Amino acid sequence: MVIIVNYNGFHSFSTLIPLLSPRHSLQYFQHNRKPPKKFNMDTSIIPDEHEPLSRVHPKTGRVTLPVEAGKEDLVHKMIDAWGADAIRDSDGTELSEELKQLNLDIYSVICLVRAEQEWPRKHPEHLPQKYLISEAVTARGTEVEIDLMRGYHPRKYRVDTINDARKYWEVIDRTTGAVVPVGHWSFDASNAKVRVTGCNPYHVYTVNFLAYVTWDATSMYNHITNGWDRPRVMSVDPYHPECREHLMRVYEKWLDAHPQTNVVRLTTLAYHFAVDSAPGETAPDRFRDWTGYQETVSVRALEDFAREYGYRMRPEDFVDQGFYNHTSRVPSQRYLDWIEFIHRFVVDFGREMVERANARGKRTGIFWGDHWTGVEPYSPAFQKMGVDIHIGAAEDGVALRRVSDAPGPQVKELRFYPYFFPDVFADGGNPIEESLSNWLKIRRAMLRQPVDRIGYGGYLSLATKFPDFVDHVRGICEEFRELHERTRGSQSWKGPVKVAILNAWGKRRAWINSFGIPQKFLIKRPDVIQVAGTNLLECLAGLPVEVEWLSLAEIEQSGVPGDISVIINDGDADTAWSGGHWWINPKVAAAVRAFVDSGGGLIGCRAPTAHFHEGRFFQLSDVFGVEKELGHSVQTACPRLTVESDHFIRADTADSFDPGIRHSHVFATDPTTTAIYEHDGHLLVTAHPFGKGRAVFMAELPYSLPNARVLYRSILWAAGREDLVERAFSTNPLTDCAFYEDSKCFAVANNSGEKQRTTVYYPDGSSIELDLRPHGIEWLGDTSV
Amino acid sequence: MVIIVNYNGFHSFSTLIPLLSPRHSLQYFQHNRKPPKKFNMDTSIIPDEHEPLSRVHPKTGRVTLPVEAGKEDLVHKMIDAWGADAIRDSDGTELSEELKQLNLDIYSVICLVRAEQEWPRKHPEHLPQKYLISEAVTARGTEVEIDLMRGYHPRKYRVDTINDARKYWEVIDRTTGAVVPVGHWSFDASNAKVRVTGCNPYHVYTVNFLAYVTWDATSMYNHITNGWDRPRVMSVDPYHPECREHLMRVYEKWLDAHPQTNVVRLTTLAYHFAVDSAPGETAPDRFRDWTGYQETVSVRALEDFAREYGYRMRPEDFVDQGFYNHTSRVPSQRYLDWIEFIHRFVVDFGREMVERANARGKRTGIFWGDHWTGVEPYSPAFQKMGVDIHIGAAEDGVALRRVSDAPGPQVKELRFYPYFFPDVFADGGNPIEESLSNWLKIRRAMLRQPVDRIGYGGYLSLATKFPDFVDHVRGICEEFRELHERTRGSQSWKGPVKVAILNAWGKRRAWINSFGIPQKFLIKRPDVIQVAGTNLLECLAGLPVEVEWLSLAEIEQSGVPGDISVIINDGDADTAWSGGHWWINPKVAAAVRAFVDSGGGLIGCRAPTAHFHEGRFFQLSDVFGVEKELGHSVQTACPRLTVESDHFIRADTADSFDPGIRHSHVFATDPTTTAIYEHDGHLLVTAHPFGKGRAVFMAELPYSLPNARVLYRSILWAAGREDLVERAFSTNPLTDCAFYEDSKCFAVANNSGEKQRTTVYYPDGSSIELDLRPHGIEWLGDTSV
Repeated sequence: MVIIVNYNGFHSFSTLIPLLSPRHSLQYFQHNRKPPKKFNMDTSIIPDEHEPLSRVHPKTGRVTLPVEAGKEDLVHKMIDAWGADAIRDSDGTELSEELKQLNLDIYSVICLVRAEQEWPRKHPEHLPQKYLISEAVTARGTEVEIDLMRGYHPRKYRVDTINDARKYWEVIDRTTGAVVPVGHWSFDASNAKVRVTGCNPYHVYTVNFLAYVTWDATSMYNHITNGWDRPRVMSVDPYHPECREHLMRVYEKWLDAHPQTNVVRLTTLAYHFAVDSAPGETAPDRFRDWTGYQETVSVRALEDFAREYGYRMRPEDFVDQGFYNHTSRVPSQRYLDWIEFIHRFVVDFGREMVERANARGKRTGIFWGDHWTGVEPYSPAFQKMGVDIHIGAAEDGVALRRVSDAPGPQVKELRFYPYFFPDVFADGGNPIEESLSNWLKIRRAMLRQPVDRIGYGGYLSLATKFPDFVDHVRGICEEFRELHERTRGSQSWKGPVKVAILNAWGKRRAWINSFGIPQKFLIKRPDVIQVAGTNLLECLAGLPVEVEWLSLAEIEQSGVPGDISVIINDGDADTAWSGGHWWINPKVAAAVRAFVDSGGGLIGCRAPTAHFHEGRFFQLSDVFGVEKELGHSVQTACPRLTVESDHFIRADTADSFDPGIRHSHVFATDPTTTAIYEHDGHLLVTAHPFGKGRAVFMAELPYSLPNARVLYRSILWAAGREDLVERAFSTNPLTDCAFYEDSKCFAVANNSGEKQRTTVYYPDGSSIELDLRPHGIEWLGDTSV
Repeated sequence: MVIIVNYNGFHSFSTLIPLLSPRHSLQYFQHNRKPPKKFNMDTSIIPDEHEPLSRVHPKTGRVTLPVEAGKEDLVHKMIDAWGADAIRDSDGTELSEELKQLNLDIYSVICLVRAEQEWPRKHPEHLPQKYLISEAVTARGTEVEIDLMRGYHPRKYRVDTINDARKYWEVIDRTTGAVVPVGHWSFDASNAKVRVTGCNPYHVYTVNFLAYVTWDATSMYNHITNGWDRPRVMSVDPYHPECREHLMRVYEKWLDAHPQTNVVRLTTLAYHFAVDSAPGETAPDRFRDWTGYQETVSVRALEDFAREYGYRMRPEDFVDQGFYNHTSRVPSQRYLDWIEFIHRFVVDFGREMVERANARGKRTGIFWGDHWTGVEPYSPAFQKMGVDIHIGAAEDGVALRRVSDAPGPQVKELRFYPYFFPDVFADGGNPIEESLSNWLKIRRAMLRQPVDRIGYGGYLSLATKFPDFVDHVRGICEEFRELHERTRGSQSWKGPVKVAILNAWGKRRAWINSFGIPQKFLIKRPDVIQVAGTNLLECLAGLPVEVEWLSLAEIEQSGVPGDISVIINDGDADTAWSGGHWWINPKVAAAVRAFVDSGGGLIGCRAPTAHFHEGRFFQLSDVFGVEKELGHSVQTACPRLTVESDHFIRADTADSFDPGIRHSHVFATDPTTTAIYEHDGHLLVTAHPFGKGRAVFMAELPYSLPNARVLYRSILWAAGREDLVERAFSTNPLTDCAFYEDSKCFAVANNSGEKQRTTVYYPDGSSIELDLRPHGIEWLGDTSV
């Protein structure tokens, strides 16, 4: 094969160095004044199609294996195959004594709130509660009867007949929004119906009522989807002090019973994320909010909150017109107050569990899933828990970054998909396809911000029925270990450009998927996060830039932080992701406008800065130079742009960009706006100067490798740093490279299933050309490790 | 050729008769108990491919010809060719004495407000005024300077330096919406700039200012587009009494000078519709509102209005955040008050002109175009003017119905496109293509509601350079006359189904195009109304149903009238066409819900009943059984429907329906909703029962012949009258039929450019099959006329 080494020399160093951020890149150049030399260009390591995937692959470490009771031989074999150094019992399996004797770290899973089923049977008042909205019923006369449970799975919920409905519920006339006086309705506990009198005919009525969750959502999922035939499991709400005390007694017994356990793996803590289920054999999802607080309600907590905050949460504060404060909604201050209130409780509860584990000499891990509501791993208070290991399930680069970027000293561990469960590991199933697709996205992002460990979950015996899959996972484990061996945990080169994702949540929902409207129409698997349509975050997850998260409230309070180069605002109109009403907050609009005017970059995607107000939909349409037509100005003309085909942002992707939507309904407001991609006059990607700064608009940005390249170029262009593009850069958009200054090596990855040729630029601008195997990653530079 | 006559007999009569409306159909059956017999089924008239287009074609009448001074021979020839019985001088031509001597009706055009140019030069204070909004300027410090004329054509406007800016203008902080105190800004008349002080940095400021219109928009168009080299023309505002008196003197002189004129053709009256022009050689449109009152402002009128109505119109009442109360905007009550105020003046002014013409023994015609703002032909007050002839330009069926359906005893006359102007009648031009496309749509609608006369405009000498076009127009004139001869002015059969178009305007904007968002992206001709995307009205224009227009205010006041079978609500969200905030008016929502519940039909298109409120976007989502996803409920599940492929509404069009949009983002809220057309889970056409009534949702409905059929079937289905479908019905969706009871004949039209075979059902359900020539219309039944 051909290697072309092209030293561009050092002519650009003088301009580059002063702009480097101290954290990463300056060190790079201090250590390595002559970069091409340091990368021992040993041609013997240049890839060959018949070579094994990795050439440096320590046989063991950094991998956690699920074990299956009664399958000791299998477990031994797989420990060897994948080089596991830790084992864990899944939820639903137990470690055998034999396995516990192995010289491995032993993770043992406990989900305390559902660990013991006597208490919930004896204390139904300690089941988790939530506010549900009844179906909307039209009053055909002056009375309506509303069947509260209609549309809800009868085994999942029980209407609360313990607490006073008149105090804790609300009936609302949804035609007007008015709350119906308590005297106008009555609740019949015998049939779970509410009768409303004095109705306005042909108005529509709903009831916000409290229900107990009588079937843990994960238990229900495993029961229905994975065919588990064990008894249904109930969770309890540890907010009740008697319940908490009981749970701690259970926990202590459990600790007693797990002497060999090194790591108590908390799965997770107190409150399950929201999953509402409709009736029927398959109990289909009605509603899902992975980061929502819908199931954290209890009358006790409501009363404590009222005492502490000086106001009462209304039922409608939770029901939110039926949207239930889904993470896509711009959160109200009341909902944020509730989050803070519950988070403090969960941290306290978690700290107690950690302390009790530590007292036995055990470390703790925490799994981001199931009962993780209230954990808030990006919150400073989270650190008070003292957890040692962060474990997150990851299907893509966004999920990786959610774990890898989390603050704190914790060891970061990914749990990969697919689970070894019968849904995928069935006759005709293709687990490799899913795993490979995931791994390519995860590896791409891992080159920017790695985690420390990886692992799997489920039944090993299912996995080993697919020998190709076992081989494939061995390859992943080896690639993962090689990355750590090569890079010795150092950070890869990032350009001196800091990007801030700006939305209504900020750090609270860092690397949480900002689902858009098309998500509604995706027929998805219930166990995996799949993103329909636009997915800017996945594009961003693998780019060599620093990423920060900002909330619009922070902008209101303190303006744009001084170290931000480019702000990204990406979301559908009036959702938390674009920010909704925050954009008509004059402080916010003025601060971001000022930021761009004085040289900052702004990238908007979908409906950036959108809230219809004073003749504008995009409140910063002047900054973007574009606006979206809503129907109010269809006969107001706009500049008609022709595409600037040689624009910096289009380079590499003119033929491969996938705009997602075609009819964006976005038009230019300014003849100086540049069309980069368009369709029949609908602008898809645009660029616009504003003062000393620059703005880029994108109608959508589905995840694809060329689209990620469009985002990278947009970031550099918006930052005014086009000069950085051929630095630590692989020209072929289907490939990536990452340079590790401390460990004097670099990786070039082929993210596609075809052979690729690419030119790789060193951080100093010199380059080599090389060929890559399908899906291959090649390590070059210092090979002495 | 084959004729199949299929008598279905009378079995359905007993069920049909009681439901027929007395006006049309009952009479039909009283007169014609045995329908097939009455249509003398003379097979000799069955079409043959070599027969002439029409077999009954009186040679003259019902056609108005434009004449051209100095081309007498040509005019004579064309009078013969097209059978004209009236001639008119176009705006910009004059009749020769010789032509005036012909035994024809003579229309003479006068546009009084721009007829004489001395007065506007001497009285610049009498030029029409309008409020303009300046460009939005970002304050980078605490001061901004705003150049008022930036973005406006310098010859079209003059900033008002006569009236007190501080009294009549407004400066607005568009970031907050606050009006800037008068003390914080100053106007420099020398350079037409406003300086604002005490600004909030990075807020955006605009000025609402008064300008005079210094170039009549039609004159400007002809000057620039048609190359007219005459002096620029100014209009004046006759609201000023001295001006009005002067104009009447001019008018009397003009009447003196036109002794042979039979018909004074008013083009039109007082105020030009709004056309704003940007700078540049081509003076491109900035803004256009054919039914808007933007150019009816004068300080005098503002003061009179304030005295009469007890409140002052604010500049912002006209500027409307820069949307200028475009007809697509939900009109405010203040804007409606202004319309009423100006309309009363225009009627008074028009009545004076009519009376003066009548005093000379002349009739009057009025042309819907140019200066027609304030005329309001659907208003009862319009009749007070005493005009004899309505003349409207028509490019399609909607434009035809706008004229043909207007109330009052006036003769209705259409002016066809293309105008004989150099834009179309140039080398390489194809006037037949445009004319034929228009005629097919107009003829289709004319079978439901004919006009009395047709005519053309422009330069005959240009038309005669295209002999094929001259032949083609002769065919149109003959077809038109044949329709009148055959039908003797009678109405064609309409089903006993009355459809009401419900929007914020009601009758005020009957048959006015409800442009949607795609209109913005259409590169259109400036002189013709072209509709981009959805166009339900054009589909409706040719259907055999009665059409009524209702405003949402009427629903609020009086509920749904008792004679309405089906309500149609069609428009983008929060526009006048769907109705915006009216739908959260509880009286409106309850009235329409009650109407459907008790058996009415509701058809929604685009964003029907939409206004985001209390968890709903479509306020009647319960009635439609569908809702649109805006991003707030992307993780709330919905029923997944499969298309009901044999639904009544799909018959005839399963393969030919054009849904326009594909990703509607509309989902089902109820499993009983029926999907009729869908794409990847996005619902495109649905049907849903609600109580005793039915609702149909359509995401879009572009105009096509199959789509018109879908609308017809939707109307019948929503009305619960599927039994009517094979009555007076031509099965092939590319064809139409119309039955004329009084004149005992019927027409079958081929609206396509290909030969078609179709089965035609008589109103009693019996049928024949026949073949039709491309574009042909065949008259059957009583051929004795």
